[in-house]
Amino acid sequence: MDGMKPHIIILTEGHSEPNTAKTAAGILRYRGGEVAALLDSTAPRATAGELLGVGDDVPVIHSLNEAPDADTLLIGVATTGGQLPPSMRAHIREAIQRGWEIISGLHAFLSDDEEFAGLARQSGATLTDLRRNTERDVARREGLRHDCLRLHTVGPDCGIGKMVAALELARGLTAEGIAAKFIATGQTGIMIEGDGCPVDAVVADFISGAVEKQILSQQHHDVLVVEGQGSLIHPCYSGVTLGLLHGCLPHALVLCHPLGRTHVKGLEHIPLPSLDETAELYRGLANAAHPCHFLGVAINSRGADEAAFAAEKNRVETLLGLPACDVVREGPGVLVTAARRLLAEREGA
Amino acid sequence: MDGMKPHIIILTEGHSEPNTAKTAAGILRYRGGEVAALLDSTAPRATAGELLGVGDDVPVIHSLNEAPDADTLLIGVATTGGQLPPSMRAHIREAIQRGWEIISGLHAFLSDDEEFAGLARQSGATLTDLRRNTERDVARREGLRHDCLRLHTVGPDCGIGKMVAALELARGLTAEGIAAKFIATGQTGIMIEGDGCPVDAVVADFISGAVEKQILSQQHHDVLVVEGQGSLIHPCYSGVTLGLLHGCLPHALVLCHPLGRTHVKGLEHIPLPSLDETAELYRGLANAAHPCHFLGVAINSRGADEAAFAAEKNRVETLLGLPACDVVREGPGVLVTAARRLLAEREGA
Repeated sequence: MDGMKPHIIILTEGHSEPNTAKTAAGILRYRGGEVAALLDSTAPRATAGELLGVGDDVPVIHSLNEAPDADTLLIGVATTGGQLPPSMRAHIREAIQRGWEIISGLHAFLSDDEEFAGLARQSGATLTDLRRNTERDVARREGLRHDCLRLHTVGPDCGIGKMVAALELARGLTAEGIAAKFIATGQTGIMIEGDGCPVDAVVADFISGAVEKQILSQQHHDVLVVEGQGSLIHPCYSGVTLGLLHGCLPHALVLCHPLGRTHVKGLEHIPLPSLDETAELYRGLANAAHPCHFLGVAINSRGADEAAFAAEKNRVETLLGLPACDVVREGPGVLVTAARRLLAEREGA
Repeated sequence: MDGMKPHIIILTEGHSEPNTAKTAAGILRYRGGEVAALLDSTAPRATAGELLGVGDDVPVIHSLNEAPDADTLLIGVATTGGQLPPSMRAHIREAIQRGWEIISGLHAFLSDDEEFAGLARQSGATLTDLRRNTERDVARREGLRHDCLRLHTVGPDCGIGKMVAALELARGLTAEGIAAKFIATGQTGIMIEGDGCPVDAVVADFISGAVEKQILSQQHHDVLVVEGQGSLIHPCYSGVTLGLLHGCLPHALVLCHPLGRTHVKGLEHIPLPSLDETAELYRGLANAAHPCHFLGVAINSRGADEAAFAAEKNRVETLLGLPACDVVREGPGVLVTAARRLLAEREGA
């Protein structure tokens, strides 16, 4: 989609802050050139960069009237439970009446909403629900190619950069001439990559099967980097995480580590385990299915100063004996190097 | 439903053997008095007891014409992937045309089948899809009562007796005057108990939330015994298992152990971990969410002779330091005793 003019309005009405608007942040980071504006009538007339820490000078607008050249409204929030914030309805209605494409990654499907569906029939607008799926295949653990290296990003919580780490690692490998592919498993990743599977929206019995299908269809690559979801200890989503882990059967994991986070995001009564306890849980469950080790650590140091980041990186590398980096702050170099080393070892073996 | 006359025909067409017809076996074991016949035109004219090892002299019939007093057709198989075996369609069509209730626990919903739905509109038949649900709540881990003891049955594979162990334990406690409740989490358990949640059919993000909702609604009991599903190492269903474990936050687990099974049922290329490795995986993941230990072991010794069972029971008790029994062969006595001891300890604490 390179070279496209800015034609997307990202709807973040009432939610223009980095945690809830994480879909917006992902689109701004990886498809920023296509984004004309953020739409939030409750936000100050600032820039995306100022509000979300990404997106530079993409403007915040208060009404669709301010974006005459756009043709797409993308819902930029990942709400708990995936419901549509009621305050967004008026904007969506207006975009549908203009005949736009409306792209949503919510669990509540726009195309199941009678009002929206009716308006879309009248205007010819397209309602795209990225989480809608009909996955009904169970996993078989057959036909996996030995010469396709499977990497997977995991961690102790949601919203810690598992998608960004996977994307950066896949792109870093690609930049060095390796046929690597990012396997998207969530709505934002699918919007960025253009394919993938929304594993958290699959009927529970078919989580691993849906992931396995993605793997089997992309094994012509040398490396697959599978986006992680949730956490093995997340009170809401641990089932998604384990089904995904056992569906993609990684050879190696990247441990994503949110500097300074001590409790589950949004559930502050639930403490996170320590970094090494977290690593041990993943090691146990991954190896119960397939031989697997850690490739390295992706530290998310957003908001920390250089000294705090350097100290944490040193602590993590010493504690776990693994290379660590912040893929946003420093690029994915050390993880790319570790993956190349693993590729070389496997080719030699 | 005690005292009801036999009015249910269990459809097992082409699948009248214990593994696939496990829904039939469960209904025969716990609602046997309501069952008029098994329907399988491919089976010999034997009894349910002869074909499934349960159900005594419930006859096998080849056509609905042989059951003039029935009014309910219950689909008695749990197929991989939950699809409807095509050979069952003719029988279902006929039952619908007679205006019966058709009860299904398949993933493929009868009421979504255009032919069946159309026929049911004409005849007034009822299509009941037990796995259909609209669960959209995430777990919160709030409001759990300390004085309601939560027990949960787990194990290394599917089809090893987790439902039966949970039911027998709950009934054993009830028989001793304790307010215990079986929490059904699968289609057969729901058919037997009359309530519960089909966790394997919930959209993946809401597995734990759906289970938590069951717990919160039944906390007026002194003990809840939550039916387990799948296995933490099952290639297809580990996500369901972990979401369930983290949704019900058990104080204690019953480890279900299938004597002699060495590989995943239906996926014979995948070996099972040892009994103590299995226990360790559950211990780690359960305790990552809530303090939890093992109450005892429920050995499924179906097909083994007394000597083999006694030897295995001795091995298991020595290896794990836990009381063990086969709830079908011996009753759940030692597990009931262990649960009563735990209740007393917690009251004293």
